[in-house]
Amino acid sequence: MSSFKSISVAAAVLLAGSVSAQTFQRLGACPTLGCVFPPDQADFLAGQFFDIRLEVHAPKNGTEAIGLPPDEKFTFTLAKGDEAPKPVTEYFAIQDSKLENWTFSWYEDLFARDAKKPTVVDVRAKAYRRLALYEPGEYTATLNYNNGSSTKATWLVRDLAEERKTKNVVLFIGDGMTTNMITAARLIGHKSINGKYQSKMQMDKFPVLGHQMTHSIDSFITDSANSASAIYTGHKSTVNCLGVYADSSKSPFDDPKVETIAEIFHRLTGGHVGIVSTAFLADATPAGLTAHTRARSEYGHVVDTFLNGITNYTWTKWDGPDVLFGGGAEQFYTPYLNKTYYTEFAKKGYQILQNRTSLLAAPNTERALGVFTTSNMAKWLDRNVYRSNLNQSLSPTGDKKPALDQPGLKEMTLKAIDILSERSGDKGWFLMSEAASIDKMMHVLDYDRALGELLELDDTIKATVNKLNETNSLKETLILVTADHGHGFDVMGSVDTRYLAAQNVDRKKRDAIGVYQNSGLSQYQNTGNLTYTDSNFPKSWDPRYTLFQGLMADPDRRENWSVHKDGPRTPAVEVPEDSDDYYANPKDGKDGILLNGTLPVENDQGVHSLTDVPVFAMGPCQELFGGVYNSVDLFFGMAECLGLGRGTPPAEQ
Amino acid sequence: MSSFKSISVAAAVLLAGSVSAQTFQRLGACPTLGCVFPPDQADFLAGQFFDIRLEVHAPKNGTEAIGLPPDEKFTFTLAKGDEAPKPVTEYFAIQDSKLENWTFSWYEDLFARDAKKPTVVDVRAKAYRRLALYEPGEYTATLNYNNGSSTKATWLVRDLAEERKTKNVVLFIGDGMTTNMITAARLIGHKSINGKYQSKMQMDKFPVLGHQMTHSIDSFITDSANSASAIYTGHKSTVNCLGVYADSSKSPFDDPKVETIAEIFHRLTGGHVGIVSTAFLADATPAGLTAHTRARSEYGHVVDTFLNGITNYTWTKWDGPDVLFGGGAEQFYTPYLNKTYYTEFAKKGYQILQNRTSLLAAPNTERALGVFTTSNMAKWLDRNVYRSNLNQSLSPTGDKKPALDQPGLKEMTLKAIDILSERSGDKGWFLMSEAASIDKMMHVLDYDRALGELLELDDTIKATVNKLNETNSLKETLILVTADHGHGFDVMGSVDTRYLAAQNVDRKKRDAIGVYQNSGLSQYQNTGNLTYTDSNFPKSWDPRYTLFQGLMADPDRRENWSVHKDGPRTPAVEVPEDSDDYYANPKDGKDGILLNGTLPVENDQGVHSLTDVPVFAMGPCQELFGGVYNSVDLFFGMAECLGLGRGTPPAEQ
Repeated sequence: MSSFKSISVAAAVLLAGSVSAQTFQRLGACPTLGCVFPPDQADFLAGQFFDIRLEVHAPKNGTEAIGLPPDEKFTFTLAKGDEAPKPVTEYFAIQDSKLENWTFSWYEDLFARDAKKPTVVDVRAKAYRRLALYEPGEYTATLNYNNGSSTKATWLVRDLAEERKTKNVVLFIGDGMTTNMITAARLIGHKSINGKYQSKMQMDKFPVLGHQMTHSIDSFITDSANSASAIYTGHKSTVNCLGVYADSSKSPFDDPKVETIAEIFHRLTGGHVGIVSTAFLADATPAGLTAHTRARSEYGHVVDTFLNGITNYTWTKWDGPDVLFGGGAEQFYTPYLNKTYYTEFAKKGYQILQNRTSLLAAPNTERALGVFTTSNMAKWLDRNVYRSNLNQSLSPTGDKKPALDQPGLKEMTLKAIDILSERSGDKGWFLMSEAASIDKMMHVLDYDRALGELLELDDTIKATVNKLNETNSLKETLILVTADHGHGFDVMGSVDTRYLAAQNVDRKKRDAIGVYQNSGLSQYQNTGNLTYTDSNFPKSWDPRYTLFQGLMADPDRRENWSVHKDGPRTPAVEVPEDSDDYYANPKDGKDGILLNGTLPVENDQGVHSLTDVPVFAMGPCQELFGGVYNSVDLFFGMAECLGLGRGTPPAEQ
Repeated sequence: MSSFKSISVAAAVLLAGSVSAQTFQRLGACPTLGCVFPPDQADFLAGQFFDIRLEVHAPKNGTEAIGLPPDEKFTFTLAKGDEAPKPVTEYFAIQDSKLENWTFSWYEDLFARDAKKPTVVDVRAKAYRRLALYEPGEYTATLNYNNGSSTKATWLVRDLAEERKTKNVVLFIGDGMTTNMITAARLIGHKSINGKYQSKMQMDKFPVLGHQMTHSIDSFITDSANSASAIYTGHKSTVNCLGVYADSSKSPFDDPKVETIAEIFHRLTGGHVGIVSTAFLADATPAGLTAHTRARSEYGHVVDTFLNGITNYTWTKWDGPDVLFGGGAEQFYTPYLNKTYYTEFAKKGYQILQNRTSLLAAPNTERALGVFTTSNMAKWLDRNVYRSNLNQSLSPTGDKKPALDQPGLKEMTLKAIDILSERSGDKGWFLMSEAASIDKMMHVLDYDRALGELLELDDTIKATVNKLNETNSLKETLILVTADHGHGFDVMGSVDTRYLAAQNVDRKKRDAIGVYQNSGLSQYQNTGNLTYTDSNFPKSWDPRYTLFQGLMADPDRRENWSVHKDGPRTPAVEVPEDSDDYYANPKDGKDGILLNGTLPVENDQGVHSLTDVPVFAMGPCQELFGGVYNSVDLFFGMAECLGLGRGTPPAEQ
């Protein structure tokens, strides 16, 4: 599932960084031996809560060893503009913190890893928690250490915008969705004549288009955790991080936090929050709105923060979203720290919904937890075309029965809007709705299911626009559609699947591929007679001529470019089992071409890519989201539109 | 070069179309046996010249055979809105045309091709030439044939916009350039700190962003010829077509034409035109502004139309561009129809420039033909870093000496603006400037050279904005930056090239690839000490950690993800020679991973992709180019901004 497997390889060798290192780094965003978090170039919303973490590193061996213990007498100052630097304790009028110490180890490169020669680093550290800067402008944060060394960080508090311009925000995230995928989905879901589409994607109708750059703080490829953090907090971070910068300590719960859009919106305005995803709910994109941890795999923590917010430190007061809809029932019926969260949510007055029928029937006046399956939710293609694939032991109650009555993203989103609208009154609401399995199906090279999820997202956006229009709230709702990162995917032509299957030799099978003029026209609308409640989906998912489509970073696999009728694809399998050595799955892509992968062989799926991803905007402040910008600017744009900046501390926090 | 090789395979089996056919079609945009060009869904600018071609097909064998000869008594009518249909001769007050007849053959699918069983089609046809519709609105064109059959085409003349809002237009085309490539170029050309770029691409600064859909009229993948036609004429067409719809006749010079933006602009306003490209000048993207032929490979015709316009039919009066700069000297010193075009251009008063030095020194008062090399121009990477690769027999005089003193896109573009500005006076100018080798280098999987060309394009745009600003013409110039199609390219991580080379086994070499957090940061700005006149290019092209980048549709090849220092890459070679069977080039990508391709084995290079491509707009009418739209809308947007629509025929044509 998702990118987690590949990432854990990195996590196992520990967080890293250094001028020379690349594959591994001593500690991200800290190329020197003195580390300041938030680091250089961090931007803040005026009044946004954040923690400060300071670390001084003393490598005991390796290329950076200096033969000294880490400096314990480091100092840290802050200065606004040209003002004189003040000690951090004076600047914020806070007590000094306790000195902490630990060690960690990392590999400087792959040769060191092969030789099993880690570099060990001794650390002294401090943290200052729940601070805020209210005055816009540039600040210089300076860590002085090792008798004359210093690490400077320039921080920027963005200009104040306290006026609220939108009542509501809907943030749609197509996880892993790129322009290339939108183009492919349009081709199979919409009819065209002589090169002109006869209907439009809803996102194509949005008046403003932007591109956001997804680069992480310490790697140019991002995962869904740190990209969610960038979009929700305005702070770039490290792979696997949710709402924190990654420090080098052992605990995943003490890293320096930054406040999220959901937390700020609720704290300052009392506005209501909804979270909807087709993933398991503890997954990164929904989790990022409330969780603060270096390890996205801390699912118990994530679910607890949905309900209770941060409890191990003083932090934003949080009392739960109005709506939490998705999959991942195992995190709700399996105890975490002796609590089961179906029970915990019910205790706080949530209706517990476990199927589509009860979702549609639920009153809009009460808060609702809807968990419709264990693991990720069923895909649109299986719910609508290949329904027998739903016969798995995925019931959200944990009774091992199938979860046959699952809603789609559209039904969850429309119900969320009903509840949020009913309950929030004049305070307004913020809804994040995620089409998670665009990403999950691209990971397993199951292009058809991924495009089905993308078309379902577009259908959901269309239904949302219609509903908001009918209820006269379209003009007071900012709608954003974006993604958190890309996958290297595109369509290069067509495949004559009948010809492909009829050939016996791989080199001859390649003749089945038609490029340029030979790509011809999409047959997904021209043949077949499938009909659904929703209109813009393929009329056939297995025409003779399919798309010559794919990813660029793959495990070994066999490609026949045909729909996977038996359920989501498994392109590669471990041979032998538990070897971490994946080969093409002999049961997958029969009659296809055997293709050797390019990824390290412990990968059983594709990985994310660098590409800028699109942003479609409509509603109040839409003009803030045109052109090309950094992912963090999405946070600042939403915060500006909601008027969340504060030039002075609120009376009560 | 470019995509032509792959396309000629399709051309060899002839143009095709039919409801069931896909890889091959009887005739594009004609699924029935009665063909109307312009076909259904065609849009027109009011007053734009076009030809009509009508064909009636009678397949003699195959699935569509009806056992009858083609109807010779077909009729054709036109009706505006609900008006009564009139015969075409009456509608336009023209004489009827001569009945033509021919046969052609095609394969219905790959099995038929393997069995060498072509389908033969008997054709009757007529053509009506240089017509125009002046009244905006919807028209119904009807071909009646075969005693009761009819083919209807709905034509739309777009709303009139006669008011001119911009004096000048610069249309930059990054051939084959996608958002993914822009992201990659930014990563290697601009320094970032903690996920924030310290400088911006010029195109990232443009206020308006759009996406255009590149779908061809009869295939979803496009080549540079028919996409240039869409952008320049507002009419989608078929692969290989320049400014025409493809009919089924044998001649590549009698297909139905549509007038281009350059022709209309010059005809109606007397405005001046400039054409700049880093390709050979007869290549599709420059050619599309003046040529009208089904076969982009008719280079002699193309070069003649640059100078003389269309001469085999009455058409738009054309007397040559002010500026024509690029490569492809062999089409200027080799005779075509007993004329050599260096001489022909000189006769008409053009200065002939053959190197950078003479380009820079040339007076701005005279028209100029600049041809700086045979074939495509040298790449930025070879001109600036690996200069010894320029030692080839490519002199533009044809004397087999090297072409060492070649200008770059920036120098050609700035000089073009100087000449156009000087000569056009109040009439204004239209300049097309193409970074052609983004495409050409992506075709040969030479990612570094492709990204170098993209950075050079951005540098050219920056210099153009600065020049227009300095001369107070920025506000009266619409600048568009776009592409004509994509390639399935992205970056998925980093490659430790030292580790890759040190391993002996392909599966172990794959460990050199770092994904997610292990991608680390770009080393193209962090290491190396290359400096150039231009600022935003890599400081090193061969850092230890390179980009894990690539295309998705490939020939067999060996990848080591390292810069190709000896000149543009040759990923695959014919084995044995002249076999049309390409294998990985044993001299390419040494120490790399051997990867089997997915394309038909006669391909020695990658192919285009489906993806929507970006449009960046700045200047008068910039607001017309935001959001998502069809490629033809670029033509209509430029025409609207230049005020080129006409509600009545001009006094003189």
